Amino acid sequence: MFARDVEVKQEQKLSPDRSLRSRLFEVRAYTEKLTEPLSSEDQTVQAMSDASPTKWHLGHTTWFFEAFLLEKYIESYRRFDETFHFCFNSYYEHAGPRHPRPLRGMLTRPSAEKVSDYRRHVDEGLTYLFDYYRLELPKDVIEIIELGINHEQQHQELILTDILSLFASNPLRPAYDKGYVSHHEIDSFTKPDWLMPKVGIVEIGHDGEGFYYDNECPSHVTLLQPFKLCDQLVTNGDWLEFINDGAYKTPTLWLSDGWYAVRSQNWEAPGYWEKIGDFWYQMTLAGMNPVHKRAPVSNISYYEAEAFARWVGKRLPTEFEWEVAAKAYPYELKQLYSHVWQWTTSSYAAYPGFVPEKGAVGEYNGKFMCNQYVLRGASHATTLGHSRATYRNFFYADSRWQFTGLRLAENIT
Amino acid sequence: MFARDVEVKQEQKLSPDRSLRSRLFEVRAYTEKLTEPLSSEDQTVQAMSDASPTKWHLGHTTWFFEAFLLEKYIESYRRFDETFHFCFNSYYEHAGPRHPRPLRGMLTRPSAEKVSDYRRHVDEGLTYLFDYYRLELPKDVIEIIELGINHEQQHQELILTDILSLFASNPLRPAYDKGYVSHHEIDSFTKPDWLMPKVGIVEIGHDGEGFYYDNECPSHVTLLQPFKLCDQLVTNGDWLEFINDGAYKTPTLWLSDGWYAVRSQNWEAPGYWEKIGDFWYQMTLAGMNPVHKRAPVSNISYYEAEAFARWVGKRLPTEFEWEVAAKAYPYELKQLYSHVWQWTTSSYAAYPGFVPEKGAVGEYNGKFMCNQYVLRGASHATTLGHSRATYRNFFYADSRWQFTGLRLAENIT
Amino acid sequence: MFARDVEVKQEQKLSPDRSLRSRLFEVRAYTEKLTEPLSSEDQTVQAMSDASPTKWHLGHTTWFFEAFLLEKYIESYRRFDETFHFCFNSYYEHAGPRHPRPLRGMLTRPSAEKVSDYRRHVDEGLTYLFDYYRLELPKDVIEIIELGINHEQQHQELILTDILSLFASNPLRPAYDKGYVSHHEIDSFTKPDWLMPKVGIVEIGHDGEGFYYDNECPSHVTLLQPFKLCDQLVTNGDWLEFINDGAYKTPTLWLSDGWYAVRSQNWEAPGYWEKIGDFWYQMTLAGMNPVHKRAPVSNISYYEAEAFARWVGKRLPTEFEWEVAAKAYPYELKQLYSHVWQWTTSSYAAYPGFVPEKGAVGEYNGKFMCNQYVLRGASHATTLGHSRATYRNFFYADSRWQFTGLRLAENIT
Amino acid sequence: MFARDVEVKQEQKLSPDRSLRSRLFEVRAYTEKLTEPLSSEDQTVQAMSDASPTKWHLGHTTWFFEAFLLEKYIESYRRFDETFHFCFNSYYEHAGPRHPRPLRGMLTRPSAEKVSDYRRHVDEGLTYLFDYYRLELPKDVIEIIELGINHEQQHQELILTDILSLFASNPLRPAYDKGYVSHHEIDSFTKPDWLMPKVGIVEIGHDGEGFYYDNECPSHVTLLQPFKLCDQLVTNGDWLEFINDGAYKTPTLWLSDGWYAVRSQNWEAPGYWEKIGDFWYQMTLAGMNPVHKRAPVSNISYYEAEAFARWVGKRLPTEFEWEVAAKAYPYELKQLYSHVWQWTTSSYAAYPGFVPEKGAVGEYNGKFMCNQYVLRGASHATTLGHSRATYRNFFYADSRWQFTGLRLAENIT
Repeated sequence: MFARDVEVKQEQKLSPDRSLRSRLFEVRAYTEKLTEPLSSEDQTVQAMSDASPTKWHLGHTTWFFEAFLLEKYIESYRRFDETFHFCFNSYYEHAGPRHPRPLRGMLTRPSAEKVSDYRRHVDEGLTYLFDYYRLELPKDVIEIIELGINHEQQHQELILTDILSLFASNPLRPAYDKGYVSHHEIDSFTKPDWLMPKVGIVEIGHDGEGFYYDNECPSHVTLLQPFKLCDQLVTNGDWLEFINDGAYKTPTLWLSDGWYAVRSQNWEAPGYWEKIGDFWYQMTLAGMNPVHKRAPVSNISYYEAEAFARWVGKRLPTEFEWEVAAKAYPYELKQLYSHVWQWTTSSYAAYPGFVPEKGAVGEYNGKFMCNQYVLRGASHATTLGHSRATYRNFFYADSRWQFTGLRLAENIT
Repeated sequence: MFARDVEVKQEQKLSPDRSLRSRLFEVRAYTEKLTEPLSSEDQTVQAMSDASPTKWHLGHTTWFFEAFLLEKYIESYRRFDETFHFCFNSYYEHAGPRHPRPLRGMLTRPSAEKVSDYRRHVDEGLTYLFDYYRLELPKDVIEIIELGINHEQQHQELILTDILSLFASNPLRPAYDKGYVSHHEIDSFTKPDWLMPKVGIVEIGHDGEGFYYDNECPSHVTLLQPFKLCDQLVTNGDWLEFINDGAYKTPTLWLSDGWYAVRSQNWEAPGYWEKIGDFWYQMTLAGMNPVHKRAPVSNISYYEAEAFARWVGKRLPTEFEWEVAAKAYPYELKQLYSHVWQWTTSSYAAYPGFVPEKGAVGEYNGKFMCNQYVLRGASHATTLGHSRATYRNFFYADSRWQFTGLRLAENIT
Repeated sequence: MFARDVEVKQEQKLSPDRSLRSRLFEVRAYTEKLTEPLSSEDQTVQAMSDASPTKWHLGHTTWFFEAFLLEKYIESYRRFDETFHFCFNSYYEHAGPRHPRPLRGMLTRPSAEKVSDYRRHVDEGLTYLFDYYRLELPKDVIEIIELGINHEQQHQELILTDILSLFASNPLRPAYDKGYVSHHEIDSFTKPDWLMPKVGIVEIGHDGEGFYYDNECPSHVTLLQPFKLCDQLVTNGDWLEFINDGAYKTPTLWLSDGWYAVRSQNWEAPGYWEKIGDFWYQMTLAGMNPVHKRAPVSNISYYEAEAFARWVGKRLPTEFEWEVAAKAYPYELKQLYSHVWQWTTSSYAAYPGFVPEKGAVGEYNGKFMCNQYVLRGASHATTLGHSRATYRNFFYADSRWQFTGLRLAENIT
Repeated sequence: MFARDVEVKQEQKLSPDRSLRSRLFEVRAYTEKLTEPLSSEDQTVQAMSDASPTKWHLGHTTWFFEAFLLEKYIESYRRFDETFHFCFNSYYEHAGPRHPRPLRGMLTRPSAEKVSDYRRHVDEGLTYLFDYYRLELPKDVIEIIELGINHEQQHQELILTDILSLFASNPLRPAYDKGYVSHHEIDSFTKPDWLMPKVGIVEIGHDGEGFYYDNECPSHVTLLQPFKLCDQLVTNGDWLEFINDGAYKTPTLWLSDGWYAVRSQNWEAPGYWEKIGDFWYQMTLAGMNPVHKRAPVSNISYYEAEAFARWVGKRLPTEFEWEVAAKAYPYELKQLYSHVWQWTTSSYAAYPGFVPEKGAVGEYNGKFMCNQYVLRGASHATTLGHSRATYRNFFYADSRWQFTGLRLAENIT
């Protein structure tokens, strides 16, 4: 249905029964495919501290395999370039000093071409590793490869969200891909429906089948009160009513911190919206387009999601409510994983009994469990196959450069 | 046991069966008693945006009764001064525009003396109100008075925490009260004990008997896993070991946001600690004193509490664990309400089914339910009688100007 | 002619032939007289980093005599309080560490009363010094006393400019003195006249008769081209035309740095102007008043003065042009010293051959000779007798909290 | 003697008698030659607000000819791309809105290749213009072309200074050109000599022969006192003594603003110096190199130059002193135009009688005449033929990314 899906996503729909090796190299190749519309200049610049240059994503996902796999399991492995360890470590304190995040855009060297060579070098190392262990991959090697695949898929999404932040800062407002469809209409014309999942003591978290991140565990039980969850996402049309009702000028609709963000960041509409004359436009991966009323609203902060819910007399779901509903109604709940990430009212925290792993891999999720809010689902930019009901994404309450929207919940009284 | 308790606190220990009227005026009088050691200059200056001048606290707690009670229930009531409504509204959007928080220290006018007159004017109004309704106070009037009493008690604590922020910025390091004992030693010399409350489905929140804030409700059930809670607070002695082990220089001990705070705010020890020569001193309400090893650590941020717990191989409790334990072991758990507020790992959020009241009073707690962490217990600066097991205090994770410490928890595996 | 003059200024008009001793104590007394309308709260708070609290001015001018005179020339002198040396040193690196300027408002202690005791203590020391040297004051003692008198007069002016910055930040907009006349009308109704001083090789700087600051020396010759100088100051009426012509929205009228200041500081009118409804008001030492069209414009930055001159097709004078004209036409040039300081186009720099004195006194002027612009004349807040044609005042180009205006010049072509 | 001179500079030594047309296209070609060592990535990124990307310099110098020449004098001329007018206008308010300076690094589009096409397009336009006016170029066309040539030469220098700011931010510290010699030794081994130009009434400014900027005019007379000027520049060796004497830790050596800059920007040495182990290195266009003691110190701020002069008991010259000496001793004064720009103590201001031209060209220099200090001479990065004794360069007192040094002066007493 979506242009990009038809053309591109199918190529990388990774059936779980394919061999690990195929899956790995297909993911690696897909990352590079994503960069095809981008010049080496596009791949180098950083528009904001939160976002990274494409070239950095390409290098970092490669460094991940070099640092955590090849250096540890292949004795004869030689680093492609000693300086890359410093350039492409993201935030792993255990892995030593690194180039500061806000300066990732200074890396005009190494060149995009050299980073491409780096990718090939590491891919050869990975090939060697599979050959070396051809009889049987050790369990911990498999785990690192699975983590590396999923890690790279996360960065595939970030390549798209981050390049949009760059192109939106460019006065030419270039399109990443004129055929990219992110603003597709909501499928159904029927009235929103409200689903009521079975509550009480419910199971939360990943059951251990297949890949999962440490933050989805330990699976555990919790107690839920009855609630309803809307089967559809809030749309741009809904949001225009919110704007036209003066929401961005009405302090009583907002959390205290939210109202501060509205004023200090001069928010008048979702991120990437621009009013030209009397009309609202939206900067997208397909370039500037009129705001489509029936498409899900995107690039909103937690504060805006929360204020909208208050305005409409509903609320955001907790992440547990979302998960229970997503497991119960995988088909009835529309746009679960295909449009925008959905803010929940849950602060990102460890599940009971969570203990991060030792060493650098333990930094993957645990050290961010503070001050952020959980989003569930996935977006049109999420790599196919990377979504599941237990997946926990998280951003700060004022973040707007991801494809983030909302699905409403309400109490049953 | 504590100097201040013996001399001062007894005066305002408010038995719940005293009449509302007595309790109200005793609280009002106690606020003024707290200001006795302070000159009008001390009462005027604001040392940081988070803290307010004493004079502002005196005016604001008075405005609260004027705006929410006298103006609404006494037709003949006349505002003491039209401008005070603007000066002394804190954050109530429903009550209209107000003087910006970071500029509260600009209010050299009205003078401390005029604010004192304002207090008398409103106290006379309150006396009139009791006489007017002498047969029976309407239920909503009682509720506002109870809220006003508790509100004023909260500001009594803030008067103390905020004046310390001022005196710590003064090169003379003046004492608020040389006899004030905040750094008292931990009572028991016995080894810390670990208590194991009964878990499973437990009751959380206030049961409705006596006064409570809206954020303690609705009371509800939740599901807890087995855990242990330490019967004592972490001490300065423990913290010195933490410092000496290089904690403030070891990024892997910290949450990512916490490590950022350490570096950007140059933290090397708890708030108000100063190293003079080879020795650590602590600025307190009694002036500069050597750090007492057996006193509970105070003025630490959430980040520091969390890092300490990691360093020692334990964790912070959730607010629910704290509450369940506090209800189960009111006597076995030491220093519950008498020393420092205790950080929990719970982000401040609405209880299931929470709906803020209409109008300004609905802003009391609800709009702050974002980005802050819950503290339980009370501190030496909390007015006696203002504490309870369901009480939820909350501050940002980097706040250090309150009397905040920690009590450790751990999993039972 | 001006209210304040009649009532107050006469008292301290210091005839040069009075004894040094009388002049000193009259200046000291006048400083205190200036503080009479101010409560101790008013005297304590600092509204902006550039401005200091009254109490600090009172302490600092006293410290000046203690540190530079009494400690050096009276062996038996004992400091009033050891901590005051730290509190009241302004910027003298030679005199050791000091309390940071932006934190001067934290000094609720020492109290205003104690600072008053300090003044008496030092005044007694000064009395002792005069008695001790009753036969003949050493030349260097005389020089320090003269410097101290002039230094204190400078702070008398700052007490007035700084208290206005505080009262303008107070929502009550209190008056320092309701009778204070700063916005007096321009005396003459005649058309502005343009004076043409004799040019060529001219003498600049102080001739050494009477007191002068080091920055007025060495006197030297320079070469001036023919020019005209307006005999009157630019008025608020002129400025309203400037505003109404869209000056604050027209980038081409401004220096590049000036336009940046306009936008980043949101300037739409001179400092302390406020538009209420359709009318412009001005916060003054007499409180809020309508803008008087025939009064000289005040509280404008160098950028605004410069842009106005461009708009009207003239220019600012250099400081040398101003001085030559002021010497040539002491009576024809109106409002030379009585209304507002007059911006010149001269960057504040050393005169040829200038060498600062050794030690702390050498820091008085020299180390500020960078990035500031010279103002000539004096303002209504300048102590009578403190002005002269060679006097050089200086502020940064974006400063607006002083009583600063302009007098136009033009080339003769 | 200098590598770059031998290889490169000779190519563009522009004899004044060559035809305007040849000179124009040679300058245009040389700009492109300068970019040869740079990838398109290098050409795109902006390391600091003051510096611009190479690609932007390439586009802007081209836009200059399009906007100020081709559009005005060739009726049939069509803009290469409508959006470029917005992208490549630097600061000309008369030329309309433009892309904000700090975001010049966001311009990954247009690509370097497209900017190259733009250059060719405009070069063709310029060729057409020469053909069109082949009999005789109108005087104002000649003037714009001359201005455009000189403007482009200024940007040639900026391409070098700005790329160094980028490469110094890159952890790989790449060299622009390993053979580039900027740190060449001072030619003579003889002791510094002090020259005493004839003073009194002297002629300042450009006499109108050949090209000059408006800020060098009107030529006029001024009066100079006797002084001496050193025939050599201050060296790195001198600077190491300054550092080793604790200069960066001694507040009394500095202007007040200078000391603030030292502390707030953590200066411990000139710009681009790095201490590795016990040794000082310097990042240059040839990459990281040991600091050469006999090379002129470079990349110092005005504050540092001024403090050094004070430390050594001398002073900086005024720009008039420098000019008079440079005219009197073109050969005796060494390193006048070949090594580093030389700070003077003169604030950048209009010469008497200066009136900027109407329209955009009038913004070239005039609107920057505030808060900056004049530098005289030229640097190793200045295009040959672009220097002269009356040339006025100017930067803010804390700027350090240009090749800036100092030559000492002193009074004759």
